[in-house]
Amino acid sequence: MNDPVMDAAGLPADVPLTAVTRGGLVESVHRGRYAVCDPRGDELEARGDPEAQVYLRSSAKPFQALPLVLSGAADAFGLTDEELAVACASHNAEEPHLAAVRSILEKAGLSEGDLQSGAHPPMYGPAAAELVREGEGPRPIHGNCSGKHAGMLAVCAHEGYETLDYREPGHPLQRRILELLAEVCGVEEDEVLVAGDNCGVPAFALPLRSFATGLARIATGEELPDGVAGAALRIRDAMRSHPFMVAGTGRFDTDLMWRTHLLAKGGAEAVLAVGDPEGWGLALKISDGSQRAVRPAALTALEGMGVEVGTWDATVRGLHGEAVGKFEPLI
Amino acid sequence: MNDPVMDAAGLPADVPLTAVTRGGLVESVHRGRYAVCDPRGDELEARGDPEAQVYLRSSAKPFQALPLVLSGAADAFGLTDEELAVACASHNAEEPHLAAVRSILEKAGLSEGDLQSGAHPPMYGPAAAELVREGEGPRPIHGNCSGKHAGMLAVCAHEGYETLDYREPGHPLQRRILELLAEVCGVEEDEVLVAGDNCGVPAFALPLRSFATGLARIATGEELPDGVAGAALRIRDAMRSHPFMVAGTGRFDTDLMWRTHLLAKGGAEAVLAVGDPEGWGLALKISDGSQRAVRPAALTALEGMGVEVGTWDATVRGLHGEAVGKFEPLI
Repeated sequence: MNDPVMDAAGLPADVPLTAVTRGGLVESVHRGRYAVCDPRGDELEARGDPEAQVYLRSSAKPFQALPLVLSGAADAFGLTDEELAVACASHNAEEPHLAAVRSILEKAGLSEGDLQSGAHPPMYGPAAAELVREGEGPRPIHGNCSGKHAGMLAVCAHEGYETLDYREPGHPLQRRILELLAEVCGVEEDEVLVAGDNCGVPAFALPLRSFATGLARIATGEELPDGVAGAALRIRDAMRSHPFMVAGTGRFDTDLMWRTHLLAKGGAEAVLAVGDPEGWGLALKISDGSQRAVRPAALTALEGMGVEVGTWDATVRGLHGEAVGKFEPLI
Repeated sequence: MNDPVMDAAGLPADVPLTAVTRGGLVESVHRGRYAVCDPRGDELEARGDPEAQVYLRSSAKPFQALPLVLSGAADAFGLTDEELAVACASHNAEEPHLAAVRSILEKAGLSEGDLQSGAHPPMYGPAAAELVREGEGPRPIHGNCSGKHAGMLAVCAHEGYETLDYREPGHPLQRRILELLAEVCGVEEDEVLVAGDNCGVPAFALPLRSFATGLARIATGEELPDGVAGAALRIRDAMRSHPFMVAGTGRFDTDLMWRTHLLAKGGAEAVLAVGDPEGWGLALKISDGSQRAVRPAALTALEGMGVEVGTWDATVRGLHGEAVGKFEPLI
């Protein structure tokens, strides 16, 4: 690619990926960058700077769930594939998600009160309205990360780790997650930037290309350290078998897994992780963090990789149902 | 300014305005452009391309309200300044907004049933939750544009125009609005691009610089066609006297008018219109349409114009209340 590596403000170079038109004019533009790598780390495709770091946010969840399998906790507690999938989820807090999270906690001898995932209203509008009608405020279990937190707590219960401070970067579970993330993505631990995620556990930033490489490895089981491949494939298969548990109604990563053979996991600030079991990983970041641009940009990138995703309605509609504009690819 | 006019994709040139950081790293970036002009149309400041068009969206509302005053409808129906302000509003559907919209309709001999503003849940969270608790769906009056539509209907009632098709671009009221917008902004009518706004009335696109010039004229009453200056100043003063009616609790344009001597009106897809009664107008567009970037970008631009706006908390907080990042200016 001939993209410059840095723009004038010292930011990672990105390219216009998606336009939102109105009438005959581009009204808004979403820029971004993506990289596609094979399990060896060779770059198959890229737009914008693939070397600059990107926060994985919730697209790190399949990596963060590795200790749940590797420690033996998933087997010891008899977790189902649905439960493994919700441990990798940014879920809508629809009833099946809540039931799976509760089940993980119960099997591990814990309860909702142990969750430190932070409370926010359910991402799924009707579930949020139902809580309001019941006169209840959101609890940590309704937070989209509660499955991840339940999975982390299950590891702690199994390993005999302290469950009160499991969110701390220095906690043995969080240290193990960082170690595994670096290993799978092929970077040194000190190359991973660690900050705080909104739910209170560490958030990680990696070069986009390393993230794509890690996704290729999770999706294929190839080029992985001893013992990790089996756990990666089990997580991949749990997510692929239960796309609804990974997000929910109307969510792009769920829909993409239903429609294709791919592994997919979105993240806050408009990150998307995709893995093709046949041999590559794609890491996408919309520079401005707008979720609405992830789907159209990803479809363009996936089309470039020869993936058939079917048609998606790109129309923008007004309040009377009329078409006022559309999402259009810019590459 | 030395910014290029067009980027490689043929889009209007913009510049990075605001970063959203996490830990020590820029996580997301919002680009945009703005122009500041005096009432004669001379450019005082600009970032990005000031000549390319921008959809005004709801920041056109002060212009769209001009016929309400100019036709004599506001006087004939005895509209208050609060009611004039809500006719220029993208309101939160808080109780005072709904009461003012109902009052306009009643004074004009009309009712809620005449509104064709389209229904969406109140923009203000607690008002939306209250509707859910009451088991009611949103009605057109809850739409943020219902004040504008009530004002348009009042003009129709006063002028004897048909009220069933008042949203159509060919309706005499909409033709008059287009004529006034072009006059005030100093462009020919055929230089204004007309598309559909989400609430079903025409949306207008103008060169950013012309929009800024129109705002300078609305805010000062200078350089305006005969008869229009008085209407412009009356609308300016109504909005300035009742900032709450223009948006509502927690909204930036309301807050900015409370804190300063400026006229301010936001619009969808992250447009902001600002007018200084002492002599300039500022038109801002965040390229990606993200509302969250309007405040930090506007504060930077206003600081450049020597406006004292006081401090605003730029911290991004996680679900446990902890600081995880912040908004930082890039210019």
